[in-house]
Amino acid sequence: MPIIEMHMLEGRTTEQKHRVAAAVTEAVVGALGVKPETVRILITEHDEDGFFVAGQARKRRPVSVAANGAEEQHP
Amino acid sequence: MPIIEMHMLEGRTTEQKHRVAAAVTEAVVGALGVKPETVRILITEHDEDGFFVAGQARKRRPVSVAANGAEEQHP
Amino acid sequence: MPIIEMHMLEGRTTEQKHRVAAAVTEAVVGALGVKPETVRILITEHDEDGFFVAGQARKRRPVSVAANGAEEQHP
Amino acid sequence: MPIIEMHMLEGRTTEQKHRVAAAVTEAVVGALGVKPETVRILITEHDEDGFFVAGQARKRRPVSVAANGAEEQHP
Amino acid sequence: MPIIEMHMLEGRTTEQKHRVAAAVTEAVVGALGVKPETVRILITEHDEDGFFVAGQARKRRPVSVAANGAEEQHP
Amino acid sequence: MPIIEMHMLEGRTTEQKHRVAAAVTEAVVGALGVKPETVRILITEHDEDGFFVAGQARKRRPVSVAANGAEEQHP
Repeated sequence: MPIIEMHMLEGRTTEQKHRVAAAVTEAVVGALGVKPETVRILITEHDEDGFFVAGQARKRRPVSVAANGAEEQHP
Repeated sequence: MPIIEMHMLEGRTTEQKHRVAAAVTEAVVGALGVKPETVRILITEHDEDGFFVAGQARKRRPVSVAANGAEEQHP
Repeated sequence: MPIIEMHMLEGRTTEQKHRVAAAVTEAVVGALGVKPETVRILITEHDEDGFFVAGQARKRRPVSVAANGAEEQHP
Repeated sequence: MPIIEMHMLEGRTTEQKHRVAAAVTEAVVGALGVKPETVRILITEHDEDGFFVAGQARKRRPVSVAANGAEEQHP
Repeated sequence: MPIIEMHMLEGRTTEQKHRVAAAVTEAVVGALGVKPETVRILITEHDEDGFFVAGQARKRRPVSVAANGAEEQHP
Repeated sequence: MPIIEMHMLEGRTTEQKHRVAAAVTEAVVGALGVKPETVRILITEHDEDGFFVAGQARKRRPVSVAANGAEEQHP
């Protein structure tokens, strides 16, 4: 029954969000031994005026393709 | 820079919490292509009077050992 | 002074959100004996790519009208 | 599938927490037409050094019994 | 490493959000003695159907200019 | 009416928590032009098994006294 809230900068694709939700669910199930249907994930996206580090708005870096095929995006 | 809040019933061991944090971090890094040091995880534990489904307090089931070595606990 | 965050799938009407806020406030006031003006409610809506159960994006079911006049929507 | 986080000052009894969770669940079910088993409630209690209004720590008032039988507690 | 979630009514300008994030970061650094780069702030805005006091949707008051030059907005 | 949730490692003194709440309230009032009594702050403390960066539990550094008199604590 874990409930997981994920906060991230907006700009991820639908596919990325589905992929991260599936991967996190699998990680929780494997680590805690709970049933998949007890895991709920909420994603909240924040725009660049809603995510600050050291008091500075977080700029998304230009997207590049990382070695593992996943897009390299900073925050 | 994803920030992840995990809510779960209290009763997990230190080892389980470290394991789930490591597994979730790896899942997020793999799925989104972010750097590990940008991933922050907060765990909040709720006691049995703080977690309700259908208006009923959630009872933890007796702990048993699942096939994969993880403890089988329901919620 | 209870502060209540409600997370739900997007798609509710203004009228439904006002109705649920009024009903939850009344429930909290009745159960805890607090004054209504101390109750604050925040609603956060998540789209279908932001709400996952068992790692699957939550699809809203087609809206139908339930016996009590409230719309039957699943999540 | 609404997920509801309730933040309140610590000091409520188990009975009060069960009562408020049941009442809020019923309110959500009635207002939105969802099934009870889709409603999850998390209660987080904050001590007097964890709840501030106008920058002042919130003191719980002495408990008294209100007309409706519920305990009158301020925040 | 404090993580700060701010919930507010929508309608603030980019400049106001940057200003509040900078001011809150400075306040946390000064009061707790942490390094600025450990402070993360997330802003979530709620529209008028997502912020309720005493069960009533919160209306933003008309904007006026306060003595200190900051815009006077109620919630 | 801003509602502010602060997550931090446990170990701060009562005095530090009061100080940070007062400073953050003043920062919000100054930056947004709201009235102090509309600002609510919730502090949630996490123990060392509840706060992770890069999948590693966050250790508090030994407390030392910084130049500005505030205690230097890392996270």
